[in-house]
Amino acid sequence: MKIAVVGGIAAGTSAAAKAKRTAKDADIIIFEASGYVSVGACGMPYYLAGYVPEAEHLIVRRPEDFEKTGIKVKVGWTVNQIDLKEGKLYAEDSSGKGEWFSFDRLVLATGATPRKLNVPGAQLEGVFYLKGYPDLLKIENYLKENNVKNVVVRGSGFIAMELVEAFVEKGFNVTSIASFMPVSLDQDIADGIPSLLDSRGVKRIWRDDIEEVQGDHRIKAIKTKSGEVIDADMLVVALGVVPNSQLAKDAGLELSVNDSIKVDERMQTSFEGVYAAGDCAHSYSAVDGSPVYLPLGSLANRHGRVAGTNVAGGNAVMPKIAGSTISKLFDLGVAKTGFNERELERRGISYKKVVIKAKDKAHYYPGSGTIKVKLLWEERTGRLLGGQIVGLYTAVKRIDVISAVICMRGTVEDLKNVDLAYAPPYSPVWDPVTVAANQAAKD
Amino acid sequence: MKIAVVGGIAAGTSAAAKAKRTAKDADIIIFEASGYVSVGACGMPYYLAGYVPEAEHLIVRRPEDFEKTGIKVKVGWTVNQIDLKEGKLYAEDSSGKGEWFSFDRLVLATGATPRKLNVPGAQLEGVFYLKGYPDLLKIENYLKENNVKNVVVRGSGFIAMELVEAFVEKGFNVTSIASFMPVSLDQDIADGIPSLLDSRGVKRIWRDDIEEVQGDHRIKAIKTKSGEVIDADMLVVALGVVPNSQLAKDAGLELSVNDSIKVDERMQTSFEGVYAAGDCAHSYSAVDGSPVYLPLGSLANRHGRVAGTNVAGGNAVMPKIAGSTISKLFDLGVAKTGFNERELERRGISYKKVVIKAKDKAHYYPGSGTIKVKLLWEERTGRLLGGQIVGLYTAVKRIDVISAVICMRGTVEDLKNVDLAYAPPYSPVWDPVTVAANQAAKD
Repeated sequence: MKIAVVGGIAAGTSAAAKAKRTAKDADIIIFEASGYVSVGACGMPYYLAGYVPEAEHLIVRRPEDFEKTGIKVKVGWTVNQIDLKEGKLYAEDSSGKGEWFSFDRLVLATGATPRKLNVPGAQLEGVFYLKGYPDLLKIENYLKENNVKNVVVRGSGFIAMELVEAFVEKGFNVTSIASFMPVSLDQDIADGIPSLLDSRGVKRIWRDDIEEVQGDHRIKAIKTKSGEVIDADMLVVALGVVPNSQLAKDAGLELSVNDSIKVDERMQTSFEGVYAAGDCAHSYSAVDGSPVYLPLGSLANRHGRVAGTNVAGGNAVMPKIAGSTISKLFDLGVAKTGFNERELERRGISYKKVVIKAKDKAHYYPGSGTIKVKLLWEERTGRLLGGQIVGLYTAVKRIDVISAVICMRGTVEDLKNVDLAYAPPYSPVWDPVTVAANQAAKD
Repeated sequence: MKIAVVGGIAAGTSAAAKAKRTAKDADIIIFEASGYVSVGACGMPYYLAGYVPEAEHLIVRRPEDFEKTGIKVKVGWTVNQIDLKEGKLYAEDSSGKGEWFSFDRLVLATGATPRKLNVPGAQLEGVFYLKGYPDLLKIENYLKENNVKNVVVRGSGFIAMELVEAFVEKGFNVTSIASFMPVSLDQDIADGIPSLLDSRGVKRIWRDDIEEVQGDHRIKAIKTKSGEVIDADMLVVALGVVPNSQLAKDAGLELSVNDSIKVDERMQTSFEGVYAAGDCAHSYSAVDGSPVYLPLGSLANRHGRVAGTNVAGGNAVMPKIAGSTISKLFDLGVAKTGFNERELERRGISYKKVVIKAKDKAHYYPGSGTIKVKLLWEERTGRLLGGQIVGLYTAVKRIDVISAVICMRGTVEDLKNVDLAYAPPYSPVWDPVTVAANQAAKD
């Protein structure tokens, strides 16, 4: 059995490794367009911040590690055509020399591409995106070769905020431009983030956007829609990503939400024997069963594992997901699971909500801080629809308890009844999550 | 409606406060034998360690705080007789002057008493137990008035270990005597604890016991069963507790596991209108439904809330519990939920197990440490029976995810499918809990 895997970062390598373990004698080949495979891309902001001493530490495994297990890896090879009926794909190496490869089964793990800034000057030198490891090296190189003082970050998601932190930590003058309230939390719980950034000296230009990137061949300044002009030696754009699904579409595969490749619960596409995984594919929501596009490292690996099992003849199901995310922003942590208010409204799901404020540890324990927990649930049934937590960064991983209840289709009553471990260094005797659930369950 | 509450530390005050909120015009009176109410007793080791600057910080609310909400508090009054049929109880103040009080309904929150050391010399000055706030003041006073250098802690539970940490932090020479492997974890996961204590200079005398406490009127040394003699200026005994259920038994109430007061899921005793809560009562296990005696602060407050609702005419059910516990031991955290191997064997429940070792954060993230996760489950159904975690103390609160699945009667497959929030400062892309669940679910 010949299995081809297109893409070798997170989902692709997970799929290949799992396929090899599932069918030891399968003939597996990975095509990766960049020069690197198996990169911990989520760690890139932490390298830029200086927390990770060497960029290479982000590389989990190298081509030779896969070759050792019997998986072939073609690094620098771009797949640009797939003939599903004939079972063959056309790939080119970095010199443009191409070749047809045949396969019995296929995994598409083509990833995603940063959403581009579409304004005059966006092509100037010094404007960057950060998606893959090569992007990181380019930014690093640019910082080395130029006297960068003023850095602008455009975007409002977790990665944009992690980049803001990184550049502040490195001593740059940092401006954050965001068209709406940053991170995917609701306004009533995220209200501590602006003052945090202010206290760290970040210039915030929010509810505004870039009108023009100014400069000759290199960026010099940014002009916003409201007319402000900010000196800028570098701009990093983090506006989210769009799935790399054109190759799949051209091959005749159906697309789904956000133009991601349509998959079933086994990660199989609309063509039998062809699977998709990672940032090019979607998941299904544990809240309402709908397809959701969430390009997250954790899900990419889960997707890959399921696709890898199935492509090799096993039988695995990708669980419906709560869509849990978490991020550290300086000393603050923000976490979300399920849907937020905007997402619920967009889906026409009516909900009730509660936001509570509590201590994250016993009130007398040193270093205890304030934490906010928000819950969203369906009034009629009590079913949990979402949760959000903001607090000291060490305290927000408790989002996972809310996620567990959502993944098991539980109610606020179920959450209230979870017996959370208590000791003064870890929580107050009533954990903030329980406090929120008690209120939601009207206890 | 006259409601009497016997005991005013955790469960009693929770019950009284909740009863008052449930029935605003109820006439509520708390009897507390000690001089204090509403104490965060779990914080006492941290005060001894010097982490909490003032012992008074452990006091959550004072009698006057309750009086303000219309709850009467009789501090220093000991209840020593209850006539359930007549609806009256006899209480004495600290001078021994007694009085009968009538009630319509009753909550017993009489707590528990430390299990006593029963060897020659156990009555000597300098031998202490630590259960209530007065015990803490006695220990503090003794330390002030005596030139204490050598402290021995007898016991193997979480509190004993917290005391070991406290006395090490204060610079004493500390000896830990334990008759079995400390903390309620299985051997295969707790094996890092001895070397941790060794590295902190603790003298460990384990799998041994005290034969005699030596001294004149004050402790001078301890002789162990194996014949070792250790200098000791102070001994703190933490051998667990026994429920204070004699008063209830004398009143005709039925007892249950470990001689705790028998209660139903509404915390009602065998006599209608009489409730019990906290360390004097038991809970029911979410694993097998059996009554379990777990004298924990978190459960005491839950018990109290349920008893308080019901005694005031409401209708609340105490959820079945996983029995989650957690403790910090220097930089290490240990956590447990559900049953351990010994507890499963005692109940005749057959189980499968897995122990995994992983990083607690992304491998490249600074400060990432090693964590061990153990899962126990029923082979036939996959139902989760227990979990244990040992690792950096900031990393072990993820036990709550395992607890959530146990509380919802889930399987290792359910645990595997929980969508845990990922970012490099919080976990590897596969959370250690998921890694363990994947192995258990044979994925």
